[in-house]
Amino acid sequence: MSFSERDLAEYLAFAHELADAAGAEILPYFRAGYELEDKGTSAFDPVTSADRAAESVMRKLITHRYPTHGVLGEEEGSQVGDSREYWVLDPIDGTRAFITGIPLWGVLVALNDGDHPRLGIVDQPFMGERFVGDGNGAWLNGRPIRSRRCGQLGLASIMCTSPDNFISTDQRQRFHAVTDQARMLRYGGDCYSFCMVALGQVDAVIEPALKPYDIQALIPIIEGAGGVVTTWSGGDAQHGGSVVVSGDPQLHEQILALLAEKPCASGGVK
Amino acid sequence: MSFSERDLAEYLAFAHELADAAGAEILPYFRAGYELEDKGTSAFDPVTSADRAAESVMRKLITHRYPTHGVLGEEEGSQVGDSREYWVLDPIDGTRAFITGIPLWGVLVALNDGDHPRLGIVDQPFMGERFVGDGNGAWLNGRPIRSRRCGQLGLASIMCTSPDNFISTDQRQRFHAVTDQARMLRYGGDCYSFCMVALGQVDAVIEPALKPYDIQALIPIIEGAGGVVTTWSGGDAQHGGSVVVSGDPQLHEQILALLAEKPCASGGVK
Repeated sequence: MSFSERDLAEYLAFAHELADAAGAEILPYFRAGYELEDKGTSAFDPVTSADRAAESVMRKLITHRYPTHGVLGEEEGSQVGDSREYWVLDPIDGTRAFITGIPLWGVLVALNDGDHPRLGIVDQPFMGERFVGDGNGAWLNGRPIRSRRCGQLGLASIMCTSPDNFISTDQRQRFHAVTDQARMLRYGGDCYSFCMVALGQVDAVIEPALKPYDIQALIPIIEGAGGVVTTWSGGDAQHGGSVVVSGDPQLHEQILALLAEKPCASGGVK
Repeated sequence: MSFSERDLAEYLAFAHELADAAGAEILPYFRAGYELEDKGTSAFDPVTSADRAAESVMRKLITHRYPTHGVLGEEEGSQVGDSREYWVLDPIDGTRAFITGIPLWGVLVALNDGDHPRLGIVDQPFMGERFVGDGNGAWLNGRPIRSRRCGQLGLASIMCTSPDNFISTDQRQRFHAVTDQARMLRYGGDCYSFCMVALGQVDAVIEPALKPYDIQALIPIIEGAGGVVTTWSGGDAQHGGSVVVSGDPQLHEQILALLAEKPCASGGVK
Protein backbone atom coordinates (compact mmCIF):
# COMPACT_ATOMS: atom_id res chain seq x y z
CA MET A 1 0.00 0.00 0.00
CA SER A 2 1.29 3.44 -0.75
CA PHE A 3 -0.19 6.78 0.15
CA SER A 4 -1.62 9.37 -2.23
CA GLU A 5 0.30 12.62 -2.39
CA ARG A 6 -2.50 14.32 -0.50
CA ASP A 7 -2.47 11.72 2.27
CA LEU A 8 1.28 11.95 2.51
CA ALA A 9 1.20 15.73 2.93
CA GLU A 10 -1.43 15.41 5.64
CA TYR A 11 0.46 12.68 7.48
CA LEU A 12 3.68 14.65 7.25
CA ALA A 13 2.06 17.75 8.74
CA PHE A 14 0.77 15.57 11.57
CA ALA A 15 4.19 13.96 12.09
CA HIS A 16 5.59 17.48 12.59
CA GLU A 17 2.92 18.04 15.25
CA LEU A 18 4.00 14.85 17.00
CA ALA A 19 7.66 15.86 16.97
CA ASP A 20 6.79 19.34 18.26
CA ALA A 21 4.76 17.89 21.12
CA ALA A 22 7.44 15.34 22.05
CA GLY A 23 10.20 17.96 22.03
CA ALA A 24 8.19 20.23 24.32
CA GLU A 25 7.80 17.38 26.82
CA ILE A 26 11.44 16.34 26.69
CA LEU A 27 13.40 19.60 26.70
CA PRO A 28 12.71 20.56 30.34
CA TYR A 29 14.37 17.28 31.39
CA PHE A 30 17.49 17.70 29.26
CA ARG A 31 20.47 18.81 31.37
CA ALA A 32 18.14 19.19 34.35
CA GLY A 33 20.35 19.23 37.43
CA TYR A 34 19.94 16.29 39.76
CA GLU A 35 22.02 14.74 42.50
CA LEU A 36 23.08 11.11 42.40
CA GLU A 37 21.95 9.15 45.44
CA ASP A 38 24.26 6.89 47.39
CA LYS A 39 21.88 3.95 47.13
CA GLY A 40 23.06 3.18 43.66
CA THR A 41 20.19 4.77 41.84
CA SER A 42 19.18 8.32 41.18
CA ALA A 43 16.06 9.57 42.90
CA PHE A 44 15.23 11.25 39.63
CA ASP A 45 15.61 9.48 36.33
CA PRO A 46 15.24 12.28 33.79
CA VAL A 47 15.49 10.12 30.69
CA THR A 48 12.75 7.70 31.72
CA SER A 49 10.47 10.52 32.82
CA ALA A 50 11.04 12.42 29.58
CA ASP A 51 10.68 9.28 27.44
CA ARG A 52 7.35 8.34 29.01
CA ALA A 53 5.91 11.84 28.96
CA ALA A 54 6.79 12.28 25.28
CA GLU A 55 5.47 8.90 24.14
CA SER A 56 2.27 9.41 26.09
CA VAL A 57 1.56 12.79 24.51
CA MET A 58 2.26 11.42 21.01
CA ARG A 59 -0.01 8.40 21.56
CA LYS A 60 -2.84 10.66 22.71
CA LEU A 61 -2.51 12.83 19.62
CA ILE A 62 -2.52 9.79 17.32
CA THR A 63 -5.54 8.17 19.01
CA HIS A 64 -7.45 11.41 18.72
CA ARG A 65 -6.54 12.16 15.12
CA TYR A 66 -6.26 8.67 13.58
CA PRO A 67 -8.14 6.30 15.89
CA THR A 68 -7.77 3.37 13.46
CA HIS A 69 -3.97 3.61 13.25
CA GLY A 70 -1.69 1.33 15.23
CA VAL A 71 1.27 2.50 17.32
CA LEU A 72 4.60 0.86 18.03
CA GLY A 73 6.53 2.72 20.70
CA GLU A 74 9.64 2.13 22.76
CA GLU A 75 7.99 2.70 26.13
CA GLU A 76 4.48 1.27 25.82
CA GLY A 77 4.99 -1.41 23.19
CA SER A 78 2.67 -2.27 20.31
CA GLN A 79 -0.95 -1.23 19.96
CA VAL A 80 -2.54 -2.80 16.89
CA GLY A 81 -5.01 -0.62 14.99
CA ASP A 82 -7.97 -1.41 12.71
CA SER A 83 -6.17 -0.12 9.63
CA ARG A 84 -2.79 -1.22 8.32
CA GLU A 85 -1.00 2.05 9.01
CA TYR A 86 0.99 2.33 12.21
CA TRP A 87 3.17 4.98 13.79
CA VAL A 88 6.58 4.04 15.11
CA LEU A 89 7.83 6.19 17.99
CA ASP A 90 11.12 6.44 19.83
CA PRO A 91 10.77 9.54 22.01
CA ILE A 92 14.48 9.64 22.91
CA ASP A 93 16.83 7.69 20.68
CA GLY A 94 20.26 7.98 22.28
CA THR A 95 19.51 7.80 26.00
CA ARG A 96 23.22 7.70 26.86
CA ALA A 97 23.75 10.93 24.95
CA PHE A 98 20.73 12.40 26.75
CA ILE A 99 21.93 11.59 30.24
CA THR A 100 25.43 12.85 29.55
CA GLY A 101 24.15 16.22 28.31
CA ILE A 102 25.26 15.62 24.71
CA PRO A 103 22.68 16.97 22.21
CA LEU A 104 22.95 14.07 19.74
CA TRP A 105 19.77 12.29 20.88
CA GLY A 106 16.64 12.59 18.77
CA VAL A 107 12.88 12.19 18.71
CA LEU A 108 12.07 9.54 16.09
CA VAL A 109 8.67 9.43 14.39
CA ALA A 110 7.80 7.17 11.45
CA LEU A 111 4.62 6.23 9.66
CA ASN A 112 4.54 2.70 8.29
CA ASP A 113 1.85 1.93 5.68
CA GLY A 114 1.77 -1.72 6.69
CA ASP A 115 4.52 -2.69 4.25
CA HIS A 116 7.28 -0.16 4.75
CA PRO A 117 8.03 3.06 6.65
CA ARG A 118 6.87 5.82 4.28
CA LEU A 119 7.85 8.93 6.17
CA GLY A 120 10.24 9.68 8.96
CA ILE A 121 11.32 12.52 11.21
CA VAL A 122 14.40 12.82 13.41
CA ASP A 123 14.12 15.89 15.58
CA GLN A 124 16.88 17.33 17.75
CA PRO A 125 14.95 20.01 19.62
CA PHE A 126 17.87 21.35 21.67
CA MET A 127 19.80 22.28 18.52
CA GLY A 128 16.68 23.03 16.51
CA GLU A 129 17.50 20.52 13.78
CA ARG A 130 14.78 18.47 12.15
CA PHE A 131 15.54 15.86 9.49
CA VAL A 132 12.57 14.71 7.38
CA GLY A 133 12.29 12.12 4.62
CA ASP A 134 9.60 10.45 2.55
CA GLY A 135 11.70 8.01 0.56
CA ASN A 136 11.80 10.32 -2.47
CA GLY A 137 13.36 13.33 -0.85
CA ALA A 138 14.95 14.35 2.44
CA TRP A 139 15.25 17.71 4.15
CA LEU A 140 17.03 19.37 7.07
CA ASN A 141 14.88 22.20 8.41
CA GLY A 142 13.15 22.37 5.05
CA ARG A 143 16.33 22.47 2.96
CA PRO A 144 16.83 19.46 0.61
CA ILE A 145 19.77 17.22 1.55
CA ARG A 146 21.67 14.54 -0.36
CA SER A 147 24.04 11.79 0.68
CA ARG A 148 27.61 11.88 -0.62
CA ARG A 149 29.09 9.81 -3.46
CA CYS A 150 31.90 7.65 -2.11
CA GLY A 151 32.42 4.55 -4.21
CA GLN A 152 35.56 3.37 -2.39
CA LEU A 153 35.69 1.99 1.11
CA GLY A 154 39.23 3.35 1.50
CA LEU A 155 37.81 6.89 1.36
CA ALA A 156 34.84 6.27 3.60
CA SER A 157 34.10 7.73 7.05
CA ILE A 158 32.17 5.17 9.08
CA MET A 159 30.30 5.61 12.35
CA CYS A 160 28.98 3.18 14.96
CA THR A 161 27.37 4.05 18.28
CA SER A 162 29.54 1.89 20.54
CA PRO A 163 32.16 -0.86 20.36
CA ASP A 164 30.33 -2.52 23.27
CA ASN A 165 27.12 -3.38 21.39
CA PHE A 166 28.33 -6.38 19.37
CA ILE A 167 26.42 -9.54 20.18
CA SER A 168 29.23 -11.97 19.28
CA THR A 169 32.94 -12.15 18.50
CA ASP A 170 32.07 -13.17 14.95
CA GLN A 171 29.97 -10.03 14.53
CA ARG A 172 32.75 -7.84 15.91
CA GLN A 173 35.29 -9.42 13.54
CA ARG A 174 33.06 -8.86 10.52
CA PHE A 175 32.59 -5.23 11.57
CA HIS A 176 36.34 -4.68 11.84
CA ALA A 177 36.92 -6.41 8.50
CA VAL A 178 35.07 -3.42 7.05
CA THR A 179 36.32 -0.61 9.26
CA ASP A 180 39.97 -1.69 9.01
CA GLN A 181 39.76 -0.77 5.32
CA ALA A 182 37.92 2.53 5.83
CA ARG A 183 39.50 5.95 6.07
CA MET A 184 38.00 6.64 9.47
CA LEU A 185 35.86 5.10 12.19
CA ARG A 186 34.16 7.24 14.82
CA TYR A 187 32.06 6.03 17.74
CA GLY A 188 29.06 7.79 19.29
CA GLY A 189 26.12 9.31 17.54
CA ASP A 190 23.00 7.12 17.67
CA CYS A 191 20.32 8.45 15.29
CA TYR A 192 22.39 11.55 14.63
CA SER A 193 25.08 9.61 12.78
CA PHE A 194 22.48 8.23 10.34
CA CYS A 195 21.37 11.80 9.71
CA MET A 196 24.97 12.70 8.91
CA VAL A 197 24.87 10.07 6.13
CA ALA A 198 21.75 11.75 4.74
CA LEU A 199 23.53 15.10 5.00
CA GLY A 200 26.55 13.84 3.04
CA GLN A 201 28.99 14.15 5.96
CA VAL A 202 29.46 10.47 6.82
CA ASP A 203 29.60 7.62 4.30
CA ALA A 204 28.22 4.71 6.30
CA VAL A 205 26.85 3.68 9.67
CA ILE A 206 27.15 0.06 10.80
CA GLU A 207 25.14 -0.99 13.85
CA PRO A 208 24.99 -4.49 15.30
CA ALA A 209 21.69 -4.59 17.20
CA LEU A 210 18.85 -2.15 16.55
CA LYS A 211 15.18 -2.27 17.48
CA PRO A 212 12.49 -1.52 14.85
CA TYR A 213 11.80 1.86 16.46
CA ASP A 214 15.52 2.73 16.24
CA ILE A 215 15.55 2.49 12.44
CA GLN A 216 12.09 2.98 10.91
CA ALA A 217 12.16 6.80 11.00
CA LEU A 218 15.63 6.76 9.44
CA ILE A 219 14.74 4.64 6.40
CA PRO A 220 12.66 7.27 4.51
CA ILE A 221 15.28 9.90 5.35
CA ILE A 222 18.28 7.88 4.17
CA GLU A 223 16.51 6.55 1.06
CA GLY A 224 15.09 10.01 0.33
CA ALA A 225 18.61 11.45 0.45
CA GLY A 226 19.89 8.87 -2.05
CA GLY A 227 21.33 6.35 0.38
CA VAL A 228 20.67 2.69 1.11
CA VAL A 229 19.51 0.89 4.27
CA THR A 230 19.63 -2.89 4.69
CA THR A 231 20.47 -5.52 7.26
CA TRP A 232 24.03 -6.85 7.23
CA SER A 233 22.82 -9.65 4.94
CA GLY A 234 21.17 -7.21 2.50
CA GLY A 235 17.57 -7.70 3.67
CA ASP A 236 14.81 -5.31 4.74
CA ALA A 237 16.02 -3.37 7.78
CA GLN A 238 12.67 -2.13 9.09
CA HIS A 239 12.52 -4.82 11.77
CA GLY A 240 15.91 -3.83 13.15
CA GLY A 241 18.74 -6.21 14.03
CA SER A 242 22.12 -5.65 12.41
CA VAL A 243 21.83 -2.68 10.06
CA VAL A 244 24.07 -0.96 7.49
CA VAL A 245 23.34 2.47 6.06
CA SER A 246 25.41 3.89 3.20
CA GLY A 247 25.26 7.16 1.33
CA ASP A 248 26.44 5.53 -1.90
CA PRO A 249 24.90 2.29 -3.25
CA GLN A 250 28.29 1.19 -4.66
CA LEU A 251 29.92 1.54 -1.23
CA HIS A 252 27.00 -0.37 0.29
CA GLU A 253 27.76 -3.38 -1.94
CA GLN A 254 31.42 -3.37 -0.86
CA ILE A 255 30.46 -3.23 2.80
CA LEU A 256 27.90 -6.03 2.50
CA ALA A 257 30.42 -8.23 0.67
CA LEU A 258 32.96 -7.82 3.50
CA LEU A 259 30.35 -8.37 6.22
CA ALA A 260 29.33 -11.62 4.50
CA GLU A 261 32.84 -13.09 4.43
CA LYS A 262 33.69 -15.55 7.14
CA PRO A 263 36.19 -13.82 9.44
CA CYS A 264 39.73 -15.11 9.08
CA ALA A 265 40.35 -17.79 11.71
CA SER A 266 43.77 -16.39 12.52
CA GLY A 267 42.44 -12.89 13.14
CA GLY A 268 42.22 -11.97 16.81
CA VAL A 269 39.41 -10.14 18.49
CA LYS A 270 39.90 -6.44 18.00
CA MET B 1 52.80 34.53 38.72
CA SER B 2 49.14 35.32 38.94
CA PHE B 3 47.20 38.09 37.28
CA SER B 4 45.54 41.02 38.97
CA GLU B 5 41.76 41.06 38.72
CA ARG B 6 41.98 43.91 36.28
CA ASP B 7 44.45 42.08 34.04
CA LEU B 8 42.32 38.96 34.17
CA ALA B 9 39.21 40.87 33.05
CA GLU B 10 41.13 42.43 30.18
CA TYR B 11 42.64 39.12 29.09
CA LEU B 12 39.26 37.42 29.29
CA ALA B 13 37.65 40.07 27.09
CA PHE B 14 40.47 39.53 24.60
CA ALA B 15 40.08 35.74 24.75
CA HIS B 16 36.43 36.22 23.75
CA GLU B 17 37.63 38.27 20.76
CA LEU B 18 39.96 35.43 19.76
CA ALA B 19 37.17 32.85 19.99
CA ASP B 20 34.82 35.08 17.98
CA ALA B 21 37.42 35.55 15.26
CA ALA B 22 38.25 31.83 15.10
CA GLY B 23 34.60 30.80 14.92
CA ALA B 24 33.97 33.23 12.06
CA GLU B 25 36.85 31.65 10.10
CA ILE B 26 35.81 28.07 10.81
CA LEU B 27 32.03 28.04 10.40
CA PRO B 28 31.96 28.43 6.60
CA TYR B 29 33.96 25.19 6.34
CA PHE B 30 31.75 23.15 8.69
CA ARG B 31 29.47 20.82 6.72
CA ALA B 32 30.69 22.39 3.50
CA GLY B 33 29.85 19.99 0.71
CA TYR B 34 32.77 18.41 -1.09
CA GLU B 35 33.29 15.38 -3.25
CA LEU B 36 35.80 12.68 -2.37
CA GLU B 37 38.36 12.07 -5.08
CA ASP B 38 39.26 8.62 -6.35
CA LYS B 39 42.96 9.20 -5.77
CA GLY B 40 42.60 8.47 -2.11
CA THR B 41 42.60 12.01 -0.91
CA SER B 42 40.07 14.75 -1.04
CA ALA B 43 40.79 17.70 -3.29
CA PHE B 44 39.48 19.88 -0.50
CA ASP B 45 40.41 19.30 3.10
CA PRO B 46 37.99 21.49 5.02
CA VAL B 47 39.36 20.78 8.47
CA THR B 48 42.94 21.69 7.64
CA SER B 49 41.86 24.83 5.81
CA ALA B 50 39.63 25.90 8.68
CA ASP B 51 42.24 25.04 11.32
CA ARG B 52 44.94 27.08 9.59
CA ALA B 53 42.75 30.07 8.85
CA ALA B 54 41.53 30.25 12.44
CA GLU B 55 44.95 29.86 14.05
CA SER B 56 46.42 32.46 11.70
CA VAL B 57 43.77 35.06 12.55
CA MET B 58 44.18 34.44 16.29
CA ARG B 59 47.98 34.73 16.08
CA LYS B 60 47.67 38.04 14.24
CA LEU B 61 45.34 39.44 16.89
CA ILE B 62 47.69 38.36 19.70
CA THR B 63 50.81 39.77 18.04
CA HIS B 64 49.05 43.06 17.51
CA ARG B 65 47.57 43.35 21.01
CA TYR B 66 50.19 41.65 23.18
CA PRO B 67 53.43 41.63 21.15
CA THR B 68 55.45 40.30 24.11
CA HIS B 69 53.24 37.24 24.68
CA GLY B 70 54.16 33.80 23.43
CA VAL B 71 51.85 31.50 21.46
CA LEU B 72 51.56 27.71 21.43
CA GLY B 73 49.26 26.53 18.67
CA GLU B 74 48.34 23.21 17.11
CA GLU B 75 49.08 24.26 13.55
CA GLU B 76 52.09 26.58 13.74
CA GLY B 77 53.80 25.30 16.88
CA SER B 78 55.46 27.34 19.58
CA GLN B 79 56.45 31.01 19.37
CA VAL B 80 58.30 32.15 22.49
CA GLY B 81 57.55 35.68 23.67
CA ASP B 82 59.51 38.21 25.72
CA SER B 83 57.16 37.92 28.68
CA ARG B 84 56.19 34.75 30.53
CA GLU B 85 52.55 34.76 29.42
CA TYR B 86 51.60 32.61 26.47
CA TRP B 87 48.40 31.81 24.66
CA VAL B 88 47.54 28.20 23.89
CA LEU B 89 45.38 27.68 20.82
CA ASP B 90 43.62 24.68 19.33
CA PRO B 91 41.42 26.12 16.59
CA ILE B 92 39.48 22.86 16.08
CA ASP B 93 39.65 20.32 18.86
CA GLY B 94 37.77 17.26 17.61
CA THR B 95 38.71 17.12 13.94
CA ARG B 96 36.93 13.77 13.50
CA ALA B 97 33.72 15.30 14.83
CA PHE B 98 34.26 18.25 12.48
CA ILE B 99 34.69 16.17 9.33
CA THR B 100 31.70 13.98 10.14
CA GLY B 101 29.40 16.98 10.59
CA ILE B 102 28.96 16.41 14.34
CA PRO B 103 28.91 19.74 16.26
CA LEU B 104 30.96 18.52 19.23
CA TRP B 105 34.25 20.10 18.13
CA GLY B 106 35.40 23.28 19.79
CA VAL B 107 37.72 26.28 19.53
CA LEU B 108 40.11 26.14 22.50
CA VAL B 109 41.82 29.27 23.82
CA ALA B 110 43.86 29.42 27.01
CA LEU B 111 46.14 31.96 28.60
CA ASN B 112 49.02 30.53 30.60
CA ASP B 113 50.82 32.90 33.01
CA GLY B 114 54.06 30.94 32.69
CA ASP B 115 53.17 28.59 35.53
CA HIS B 116 49.65 27.43 34.88
CA PRO B 117 46.72 28.06 32.51
CA ARG B 118 44.74 30.85 34.19
CA LEU B 119 41.80 31.25 31.87
CA GLY B 120 40.21 29.08 29.23
CA ILE B 121 37.47 29.18 26.63
CA VAL B 122 35.84 26.30 24.75
CA ASP B 123 33.62 27.68 22.03
CA GLN B 124 31.18 25.67 19.92
CA PRO B 125 30.11 28.28 17.39
CA PHE B 126 27.67 26.10 15.45
CA MET B 127 25.53 25.52 18.55
CA GLY B 128 26.35 28.92 20.04
CA GLU B 129 27.74 27.47 23.26
CA ARG B 130 30.73 29.06 24.98
CA PHE B 131 32.27 27.60 28.13
CA VAL B 132 34.56 29.92 30.08
CA GLY B 133 36.60 29.39 33.24
CA ASP B 134 39.21 31.21 35.28
CA GLY B 135 39.97 28.59 37.92
CA ASN B 136 37.66 30.22 40.46
CA GLY B 137 34.46 30.11 38.47
CA ALA B 138 33.09 28.66 35.23
CA TRP B 139 30.28 29.77 32.97
CA LEU B 140 28.26 28.55 30.00
CA ASN B 141 27.13 31.53 27.93
CA GLY B 142 27.56 33.71 31.00
CA ARG B 143 25.57 31.47 33.36
CA PRO B 144 27.60 29.98 36.27
CA ILE B 145 28.05 26.19 36.08
CA ARG B 146 29.13 23.60 38.66
CA SER B 147 30.31 20.03 38.39
CA ARG B 148 28.23 17.29 40.03
CA ARG B 149 28.92 15.55 43.36
CA CYS B 150 29.41 11.84 42.71
CA GLY B 151 31.51 10.21 45.40
CA GLN B 152 31.05 6.63 44.19
CA LEU B 153 32.53 5.18 41.04
CA GLY B 154 29.56 2.80 40.76
CA LEU B 155 27.30 5.80 40.08
CA ALA B 156 29.64 7.58 37.70
CA SER B 157 29.14 8.29 34.00
CA ILE B 158 32.52 8.28 32.27
CA MET B 159 33.48 9.47 28.81
CA CYS B 160 36.48 8.87 26.56
CA THR B 161 36.96 10.04 22.99
CA SER B 162 37.87 6.71 21.40
CA PRO B 163 38.81 3.16 22.39
CA ASP B 164 41.47 3.33 19.66
CA ASN B 165 43.69 5.96 21.32
CA PHE B 166 45.38 3.82 23.97
CA ILE B 167 49.12 3.69 23.57
CA SER B 168 49.61 0.27 25.19
CA THR B 169 47.74 -2.82 26.39
CA ASP B 170 48.70 -1.93 29.93
CA GLN B 171 47.10 1.49 29.55
CA ARG B 172 43.95 -0.01 28.09
CA GLN B 173 43.68 -2.50 30.96
CA ARG B 174 44.07 0.22 33.57
CA PHE B 175 41.36 2.24 31.84
CA HIS B 176 38.95 -0.71 31.87
CA ALA B 177 39.77 -1.44 35.51
CA VAL B 178 38.06 1.90 36.17
CA THR B 179 35.26 1.83 33.63
CA ASP B 180 34.22 -1.75 34.44
CA GLN B 181 33.17 -0.42 37.85
CA ALA B 182 31.41 2.68 36.57
CA ARG B 183 27.71 3.01 35.84
CA MET B 184 28.28 4.00 32.25
CA LEU B 185 30.98 4.53 29.63
CA ARG B 186 30.33 6.55 26.51
CA TYR B 187 32.76 7.18 23.65
CA GLY B 188 33.01 10.29 21.49
CA GLY B 189 33.08 13.87 22.61
CA ASP B 190 36.58 15.38 22.56
CA CYS B 191 36.61 18.77 24.35
CA TYR B 192 32.84 18.70 24.64
CA SER B 193 32.87 15.79 27.10
CA PHE B 194 35.15 17.75 29.46
CA CYS B 195 32.65 20.61 29.30
CA MET B 196 29.92 18.15 30.29
CA VAL B 197 31.90 17.45 33.47
CA ALA B 198 31.98 21.20 34.19
CA LEU B 199 28.24 21.32 33.51
CA GLY B 200 27.51 18.50 35.98
CA GLN B 201 26.28 16.05 33.32
CA VAL B 202 29.24 13.64 33.21
CA ASP B 203 31.31 12.57 36.23
CA ALA B 204 34.70 11.89 34.66
CA VAL B 205 36.64 11.90 31.41
CA ILE B 206 39.67 9.65 31.02
CA GLU B 207 41.92 10.24 28.03
CA PRO B 208 45.11 8.34 27.25
CA ALA B 209 47.10 10.73 25.07
CA LEU B 210 46.47 14.47 24.93
CA LYS B 211 48.61 17.33 23.68
CA PRO B 212 49.10 20.47 25.82
CA TYR B 213 46.77 22.45 23.53
CA ASP B 214 44.05 19.78 24.00
CA ILE B 215 43.86 20.34 27.74
CA GLN B 216 45.09 23.80 28.78
CA ALA B 217 41.83 25.64 27.99
CA LEU B 218 39.89 22.98 29.90
CA ILE B 219 41.83 23.25 33.15
CA PRO B 220 40.52 26.67 34.31
CA ILE B 221 36.99 25.62 33.27
CA ILE B 222 37.00 22.28 35.12
CA GLU B 223 38.73 23.70 38.20
CA GLY B 224 36.48 26.77 38.13
CA ALA B 225 33.42 24.50 38.11
CA GLY B 226 34.67 22.59 41.17
CA GLY B 227 36.30 19.64 39.42
CA VAL B 228 39.82 18.24 39.32
CA VAL B 229 42.28 17.73 36.45
CA THR B 230 45.46 15.65 36.75
CA THR B 231 47.51 13.16 34.82
CA TRP B 232 46.77 9.47 35.47
CA SER B 233 49.51 9.53 38.10
CA GLY B 234 48.07 12.60 39.83
CA GLY B 235 50.49 15.17 38.41
CA ASP B 236 50.03 18.49 36.65
CA ALA B 237 48.06 17.89 33.44
CA GLN B 238 48.94 21.08 31.58
CA HIS B 239 51.56 19.37 29.44
CA GLY B 240 49.08 16.73 28.25
CA GLY B 241 49.71 13.00 28.16
CA SER B 242 47.28 10.73 29.99
CA VAL B 243 44.68 12.89 31.69
CA VAL B 244 41.79 12.35 34.12
CA VAL B 245 39.12 14.94 34.80
CA SER B 246 36.54 14.43 37.55
CA GLY B 247 33.66 16.55 38.75
CA ASP B 248 34.08 15.34 42.34
CA PRO B 249 37.50 15.28 44.11
CA GLN B 250 36.49 12.12 46.04
CA LEU B 251 35.70 10.29 42.79
CA HIS B 252 39.00 11.51 41.36
CA GLU B 253 40.92 9.78 44.18
CA GLN B 254 39.11 6.49 43.51
CA ILE B 255 39.87 6.68 39.80
CA LEU B 256 43.56 7.51 40.35
CA ALA B 257 43.89 4.60 42.80
CA LEU B 258 42.53 2.14 40.23
CA LEU B 259 44.63 3.57 37.41
CA ALA B 260 47.73 3.14 39.58
CA GLU B 261 47.15 -0.56 40.29
CA LYS B 262 49.08 -3.02 38.19
CA PRO B 263 46.54 -4.68 35.87
CA CYS B 264 45.73 -8.26 36.83
CA ALA B 265 47.98 -10.58 34.82
CA SER B 266 45.14 -12.97 34.10
CA GLY B 267 42.93 -10.21 32.66
CA GLY B 268 42.67 -10.27 28.88
CA VAL B 269 42.73 -7.31 26.59
CA LYS B 270 39.32 -5.73 26.48
